[in-house]
Amino acid sequence: MPEKMPIKALEQQLNDIVSIKLKDQRIFRGRLTRCDMYMNLTLADAEELEEDQISAKYGQVLIRGNNILWIQIPE
Amino acid sequence: MPEKMPIKALEQQLNDIVSIKLKDQRIFRGRLTRCDMYMNLTLADAEELEEDQISAKYGQVLIRGNNILWIQIPE
Amino acid sequence: MPEKMPIKALEQQLNDIVSIKLKDQRIFRGRLTRCDMYMNLTLADAEELEEDQISAKYGQVLIRGNNILWIQIPE
Amino acid sequence: MPEKMPIKALEQQLNDIVSIKLKDQRIFRGRLTRCDMYMNLTLADAEELEEDQISAKYGQVLIRGNNILWIQIPE
Amino acid sequence: MPEKMPIKALEQQLNDIVSIKLKDQRIFRGRLTRCDMYMNLTLADAEELEEDQISAKYGQVLIRGNNILWIQIPE
Amino acid sequence: MPEKMPIKALEQQLNDIVSIKLKDQRIFRGRLTRCDMYMNLTLADAEELEEDQISAKYGQVLIRGNNILWIQIPE
Amino acid sequence: MPEKMPIKALEQQLNDIVSIKLKDQRIFRGRLTRCDMYMNLTLADAEELEEDQISAKYGQVLIRGNNILWIQIPE
Repeated sequence: MPEKMPIKALEQQLNDIVSIKLKDQRIFRGRLTRCDMYMNLTLADAEELEEDQISAKYGQVLIRGNNILWIQIPE
Repeated sequence: MPEKMPIKALEQQLNDIVSIKLKDQRIFRGRLTRCDMYMNLTLADAEELEEDQISAKYGQVLIRGNNILWIQIPE
Repeated sequence: MPEKMPIKALEQQLNDIVSIKLKDQRIFRGRLTRCDMYMNLTLADAEELEEDQISAKYGQVLIRGNNILWIQIPE
Repeated sequence: MPEKMPIKALEQQLNDIVSIKLKDQRIFRGRLTRCDMYMNLTLADAEELEEDQISAKYGQVLIRGNNILWIQIPE
Repeated sequence: MPEKMPIKALEQQLNDIVSIKLKDQRIFRGRLTRCDMYMNLTLADAEELEEDQISAKYGQVLIRGNNILWIQIPE
Repeated sequence: MPEKMPIKALEQQLNDIVSIKLKDQRIFRGRLTRCDMYMNLTLADAEELEEDQISAKYGQVLIRGNNILWIQIPE
Repeated sequence: MPEKMPIKALEQQLNDIVSIKLKDQRIFRGRLTRCDMYMNLTLADAEELEEDQISAKYGQVLIRGNNILWIQIPE
């Protein structure tokens, strides 16, 4: 994949904390441990947030890429 | 599939207990017995949960991958 | 298809009674007579259930795989 | 296509009366005159039913396969 | 495309009046001037109907096939 | 692409004013400046309409084809 | 990709401010830093707007192309 592809920006965040908005409007926050070109990804220490409050803690979570609206990634 | 693919993290959980959130907001919990690259998977001793309560027991269940939001997997 | 594929677990149930949850939340129960890799399948003696009550009987039904949430299959 | 494919069960019903449930919960009933592997199909003498009552008559109708939930087919 | 394909039934209606139901429940009626295998099509003298009343007139309209539920075609 | 394809009717409207209905029921009106075979397209001087009133002006807009219901094109 | 493709109009805006409407009706505004042919893209200094008010600031955001309705791009 060329370096300038948007998905590459995600790959460069491996081991960083990211926030992920899903189509059901929930947000997951955790440490990015794996990702692929479909935006399937795994988080460690994953928390689910509703209206900025932590609503659940899940440990390791595999998120299916096609349900992702956006991913906030550190600069 | 390369070892670092997110879907590989699921394969490594064969025979472990996983929790699966579906698009209709229900959660399935059970022992992962099969999975493929589309996240189609089978659970043994599958339970359905609504608001953290067991709402049904199904024995063996085949879940269609494209309806999965996320999968909680043991670390 | 490799023997360990999830869809193989369905194929092994040909002629057994299965229950199928569709995206519109209805459940179909019947004898599995055909299936393919997209989870398209046919049931004989198909019944539709709403809240555990039989709401309709349809005889032979062809169900389109992409509308299936999950399939309960005997062990 | 192998004879045991689910879609083959539909092909064998050419010229028979079938009932088709669409994603918008309406049911079409008519004589199956054409079908393909995507479940695109044409009905002759097509009627639309709502709650078991005929709500409209359309003559010849082409139904797009991806909107079909299930098809009831004679045995 | 083989002559017996459902989509062929549409092609045979070029220059005839067809009615088209979209996923948003509106109906378009007009003279079919072009169509392709995805059911993308153009209508001339297109009218939009809501509850059997003409609600708008659009002249020439290009309709995207994947939003079509069904097409009523003359026999 | 053969001249009689529906998408060709769109291509012939480059630099003309078109109206586009999106799945969220909004209508965009503007001068068609680019289009491709997926109905991705750009409009110049784009206006958004709600119930026949201009609700916003956007200048140049790129619209994703898979959200389009239909396009009204001059004859 | 040919120069006249709609997606090319986006590529020409790299480093410019764009506004993006998502299927959940939110608008993101930010500096376009990467994009690909699926409209996956990254924004720097991304703000989320609801009814023309800034409702959140996210820094760098990766947006999944298939959730995009339209993109407003400077002329």
